[in-house]
Amino acid sequence: MRWCRFQVGNKVSYGLVEGNEVVQVAGSPFGRYRRTGARLPLGSVKLLVPCVPSTFYAAGVNYMDHVMGMAALTGRQAAPPPKADVGYRANNALIAHGEPIIIPRDATQEVQYEGELVVVIGKQAKHLREDEVWNYILGYTIGNDVSERTWQRGDRTLWRAKNADTFKPMGPWIETDADPALMRTTVRLNRRVVADFSTNNMIFGIATYLSVMTKYVTLYPGDVVWMGTDGIPQNMKAGDVVEVDISGIGTLRNPVAAEGA
Amino acid sequence: MRWCRFQVGNKVSYGLVEGNEVVQVAGSPFGRYRRTGARLPLGSVKLLVPCVPSTFYAAGVNYMDHVMGMAALTGRQAAPPPKADVGYRANNALIAHGEPIIIPRDATQEVQYEGELVVVIGKQAKHLREDEVWNYILGYTIGNDVSERTWQRGDRTLWRAKNADTFKPMGPWIETDADPALMRTTVRLNRRVVADFSTNNMIFGIATYLSVMTKYVTLYPGDVVWMGTDGIPQNMKAGDVVEVDISGIGTLRNPVAAEGA
Repeated sequence: MRWCRFQVGNKVSYGLVEGNEVVQVAGSPFGRYRRTGARLPLGSVKLLVPCVPSTFYAAGVNYMDHVMGMAALTGRQAAPPPKADVGYRANNALIAHGEPIIIPRDATQEVQYEGELVVVIGKQAKHLREDEVWNYILGYTIGNDVSERTWQRGDRTLWRAKNADTFKPMGPWIETDADPALMRTTVRLNRRVVADFSTNNMIFGIATYLSVMTKYVTLYPGDVVWMGTDGIPQNMKAGDVVEVDISGIGTLRNPVAAEGA
Repeated sequence: MRWCRFQVGNKVSYGLVEGNEVVQVAGSPFGRYRRTGARLPLGSVKLLVPCVPSTFYAAGVNYMDHVMGMAALTGRQAAPPPKADVGYRANNALIAHGEPIIIPRDATQEVQYEGELVVVIGKQAKHLREDEVWNYILGYTIGNDVSERTWQRGDRTLWRAKNADTFKPMGPWIETDADPALMRTTVRLNRRVVADFSTNNMIFGIATYLSVMTKYVTLYPGDVVWMGTDGIPQNMKAGDVVEVDISGIGTLRNPVAAEGA
């Protein structure tokens, strides 16, 4: 199933994407729901972020080529993470498929995409074994972990480097039937392929992360875990269009614009 | 006004604390509301965390005595933050006044309190000048930024060190009429005073933080900003009771327990 969240007029609903249509649903994928009789053309609805997490987790550095490449670029020693310590991102930064990434007025030119697989939690979970993690996942969506690299290097935390408003595109929907082992992540900047990697080639996989996390934290339905990116991202500028494609899920597309005066 | 959030049976409501009673309110302090005719004894209701933030911000290190004392303890050079870079905490860890702080099974004995002033945002805000920040604050509550110091030193992020389940007591209510300039924060461990400082003696004050933050992030009603702690905290163990008192707001009291096998 392919769950979307959308708006028609002032009304926000969940829906099931079936071909080029959306079947409107009463309720949500995180609780009870039923299909309504309403079917709408997919192109006619405004897609929203498919869920708003209670807690927004991110693995951060989680692919070896990204570790090695960033080390080469910055002249620092490569330091792959020794264990699956998760980090955080912030809800203010979330935008939906199609909405513009706004580059803040005083950002440098180093505003970069990061195409990421997003795990969406379906059921409350604590103390999960690795082999039971999969029963607690609703499905997968796509994230673009937009990052301002000068702020990332200079600030004490990642707050604005990673969480300036609009820096976290997520969508277009949640696919429940996809298999991470078969996925490939492709990023296109103005239709040119700028990243292409095996999605599952993570340093610490989904099962490891969720098992380690739930030793200490309860995961709730709708929480998301962004799994990191591979390769060396490039800069984006106003007027660009960035697409993150993950096979089996879909394509997250966002234009890039500059903040007004 | 003193806003609380409480539960009677299965019903969750906002209320106004007046003396030893709670006036039940329809709606919330973040939108429209009206007083109902229901008045309940304060001691008869289960207080909940007074709000659940969309984004949960924390200043982190923000008092000079804390900077100097922690440096002396760890043998590292004192490093006061050069600017108001905000960080994050996580909703999974929130508990209300009266609920137990649970020490995880494999935590060391270095689980410590940090008494903190919490700013509660009342209105959506972006690009605030320092002098207009106060119009966007609903009021103040109290936080206990419970921290496991060995994890804080060794992990790549603060995830479990600061955000293990139950590590973020917040409450008991939101006071709208308090003045941070007049507040004193007192922490008591088993009724013994273990911290006592001028709440407003921050390295970067509330106006600075909110103004800097809103250059990049939109604050939403119900978002919270924890302003940091002063002094050198001590360890807590199962069976202890920790109280954080801020004059003009009230007292946040939580027992400490150990996680079951």
